[in-house]
Amino acid sequence: MPEMDILEDILNIQSTSGDESSMTNYLLNLVSERMKSWKVIPDIYSGTQLHDCLLLKFGKPKGAVFAHIDTIGFMSRYENQLVPIGGPEVENGTYLVGKDELGPIRCKIFEEEGNIFHDFQRKILPGTRLSFEQNIQISNDFIQAAYLDNRLGVYNALKLCETLEDGWVVFSTYEEHGGGSIPALINFIQKTSPIGFALISDITWVTGGVHHHDGVVISIRDKHIPRRKFLEKILKLAEESSIPHQLEIESAGSSDGREVQFSPYFIDWCFIGAPEDNVHSPREKVSLKDLDSMVEMYRYLMPRL
Amino acid sequence: MPEMDILEDILNIQSTSGDESSMTNYLLNLVSERMKSWKVIPDIYSGTQLHDCLLLKFGKPKGAVFAHIDTIGFMSRYENQLVPIGGPEVENGTYLVGKDELGPIRCKIFEEEGNIFHDFQRKILPGTRLSFEQNIQISNDFIQAAYLDNRLGVYNALKLCETLEDGWVVFSTYEEHGGGSIPALINFIQKTSPIGFALISDITWVTGGVHHHDGVVISIRDKHIPRRKFLEKILKLAEESSIPHQLEIESAGSSDGREVQFSPYFIDWCFIGAPEDNVHSPREKVSLKDLDSMVEMYRYLMPRL
Amino acid sequence: MPEMDILEDILNIQSTSGDESSMTNYLLNLVSERMKSWKVIPDIYSGTQLHDCLLLKFGKPKGAVFAHIDTIGFMSRYENQLVPIGGPEVENGTYLVGKDELGPIRCKIFEEEGNIFHDFQRKILPGTRLSFEQNIQISNDFIQAAYLDNRLGVYNALKLCETLEDGWVVFSTYEEHGGGSIPALINFIQKTSPIGFALISDITWVTGGVHHHDGVVISIRDKHIPRRKFLEKILKLAEESSIPHQLEIESAGSSDGREVQFSPYFIDWCFIGAPEDNVHSPREKVSLKDLDSMVEMYRYLMPRL
Repeated sequence: MPEMDILEDILNIQSTSGDESSMTNYLLNLVSERMKSWKVIPDIYSGTQLHDCLLLKFGKPKGAVFAHIDTIGFMSRYENQLVPIGGPEVENGTYLVGKDELGPIRCKIFEEEGNIFHDFQRKILPGTRLSFEQNIQISNDFIQAAYLDNRLGVYNALKLCETLEDGWVVFSTYEEHGGGSIPALINFIQKTSPIGFALISDITWVTGGVHHHDGVVISIRDKHIPRRKFLEKILKLAEESSIPHQLEIESAGSSDGREVQFSPYFIDWCFIGAPEDNVHSPREKVSLKDLDSMVEMYRYLMPRL
Repeated sequence: MPEMDILEDILNIQSTSGDESSMTNYLLNLVSERMKSWKVIPDIYSGTQLHDCLLLKFGKPKGAVFAHIDTIGFMSRYENQLVPIGGPEVENGTYLVGKDELGPIRCKIFEEEGNIFHDFQRKILPGTRLSFEQNIQISNDFIQAAYLDNRLGVYNALKLCETLEDGWVVFSTYEEHGGGSIPALINFIQKTSPIGFALISDITWVTGGVHHHDGVVISIRDKHIPRRKFLEKILKLAEESSIPHQLEIESAGSSDGREVQFSPYFIDWCFIGAPEDNVHSPREKVSLKDLDSMVEMYRYLMPRL
Repeated sequence: MPEMDILEDILNIQSTSGDESSMTNYLLNLVSERMKSWKVIPDIYSGTQLHDCLLLKFGKPKGAVFAHIDTIGFMSRYENQLVPIGGPEVENGTYLVGKDELGPIRCKIFEEEGNIFHDFQRKILPGTRLSFEQNIQISNDFIQAAYLDNRLGVYNALKLCETLEDGWVVFSTYEEHGGGSIPALINFIQKTSPIGFALISDITWVTGGVHHHDGVVISIRDKHIPRRKFLEKILKLAEESSIPHQLEIESAGSSDGREVQFSPYFIDWCFIGAPEDNVHSPREKVSLKDLDSMVEMYRYLMPRL
């Protein structure tokens, strides 16, 4: 079973793209409290100069793990209209929550002729950010909630901190909406303690070839293609590890890996994460076994890459 | 009323994306003549090493104002076909002007089965650049002309120069077609005298929620989303200022802000500009009151951010 | 006639985007063997730190020539499905070749309801890369083969090496699929021996205005627009040279030039290359006369820009 106290905390924090500071503060506190029990105490980099990002440097890094801390959601427009942040699923009747200067908000969404509306009884101030109402369900086999993408990736990164000796653990912003923190993070990393590879700790999709309970997904490609030489190194280690894992070969989908590839440095990258059903809906669903494999795989790979 | 001599000059200079040197030269001359009367005399950066961009550094900058000096237009192709530069509105019968080695050109455009043609009586040499014929109309309330986007943003930046004590004023290229000068400009700025924020001095759209005469637009988002913390700082100052302003929340549209966000530096950005009707047509229309608010707002914000 | 031994070698090496190392190794060997006979012996940059790219520095560079060494192709997915690498033409019955751990593969492709399948008699391991089966045909006037794009651009770069005194010759990766090596290459170049311009040695399209046998194409624009001042310098030299050439003005298509433009440096760029028919099919076709003009034009321009 995952550590449910942390997981519940981070699943309940709202942090749509561009508004991640509550999440950053939570993580900063958690790291401060917990790091004494970690194998290595990391250097912590945060603050205005780094916007709402948070970086932890353990020992002498050869690589980095990136976990994005932003989520999809909605922003109120004029009248009672909403515009999406990232690519949320819009299902009529879904509850959204948030607050503006006039107080807390809970409302339903509905779609009409391609536009999205809320049914809140009063005007919502323009520019207010709304998130899916959270509803966490745990069974023996599954966790279901809004924002498993990417709270589970964040959780995985936090678990990795416990045993990591050398490497960066990086909490990035803006992944769901346009991107743009990775270039600045990479620049900072390469000037502080440079890396040669990056693992993307994020959640992917259950598809025709990717199934619940078959283990963590190592992505051979999505819209972008990591370098074959690096993939082969990872696949060989994954094989050795005996940790359950499966391969993804998709033509669509993207991640922070895209921006690592386009960076002005030769940095290899690979997406490794558990798959989910009901993507970008309030009912994202992940196999607990796959989450477990994800945590195990990162622990296995990081000292060996 | 705006300073019509400058405004008429810059509205009459042709400078489609990639061919901005006439505009750069005009601005360079204007700056040389006028800067003695400015509160602070800036350092001027221009020349081949900076392509057709122009940068002015006032005092000790904390931020920068970016105004793009290129415009949309057309380029002659083979036969009597045209291809767009940026995203111009194509209305049959619109007059275009330009010149090639064979002499001056004035012709009409028409669209046929998705292709654009001109009706000039002779062949136009392939690769020749054409712009909308200019027609400036001023009333008590409005200015109407081609290329208010972004001649008014340039005008605003020039007005700001008169009183600016600390900050960069940057005239960028290629905004209308693909972008690409901002990354190099930012790199130059960060190495010369680094900044923490950028304001985008450009023109936006009248929409369902953005109206003429309601003041300068502060954009909460377009296709891209600035960081909430920075937006809130601006909105608080704007409130204090009592300068007329309105908020924009759109899901589409983009600006030089996009490239600031994707830069390898943590630089906050926000789009602030008057709204226009008849976007990218020869009859772009802006409220003089909104233009006035734009000039006032930049003067108010720059020393306070 | 082109040097057919080299050309046949490189046309027969498989190197889909992300898997270019065989090509890099071939080029590295070839350069080592041949460079003694070149006018200037270049500094060679390659190895893990540069991924699968290869850079040659001749003398004191003012500019660089970029030739991408990757090709389009296919990757096996789950079941007997394929996903494209880059944008290959899919024609039912086309033969693909490759190999996985179970042995060599030769199969046909067919498309059904927007998905691509192979007909190999056994399962192909997921993530296996397949290329068009090669079939080189030379006549008096034409060369026809798979992957002339960009084996001819590579060939042109190699021919340039024979006489080049000052300049970078750069073999880039990932051009066909998403890009991403140019930013890192440019960063490396600007830190090692900086440049002010880049020529893109690649193959373009025969269109309504671009014809076989009319000479190498100098591209005035594709989706992106090079800076007018640089274009005019090139066009003037091309005129002087008397080498057959023609102009391209297109609204679509892109190249490594795009990433040069978006780099954080002010580097001019222009695409110069022979045009082909049957783009991205196994039967790409280029005029030998145009290939010859391409080689001549690069030799003429590089010392003069």
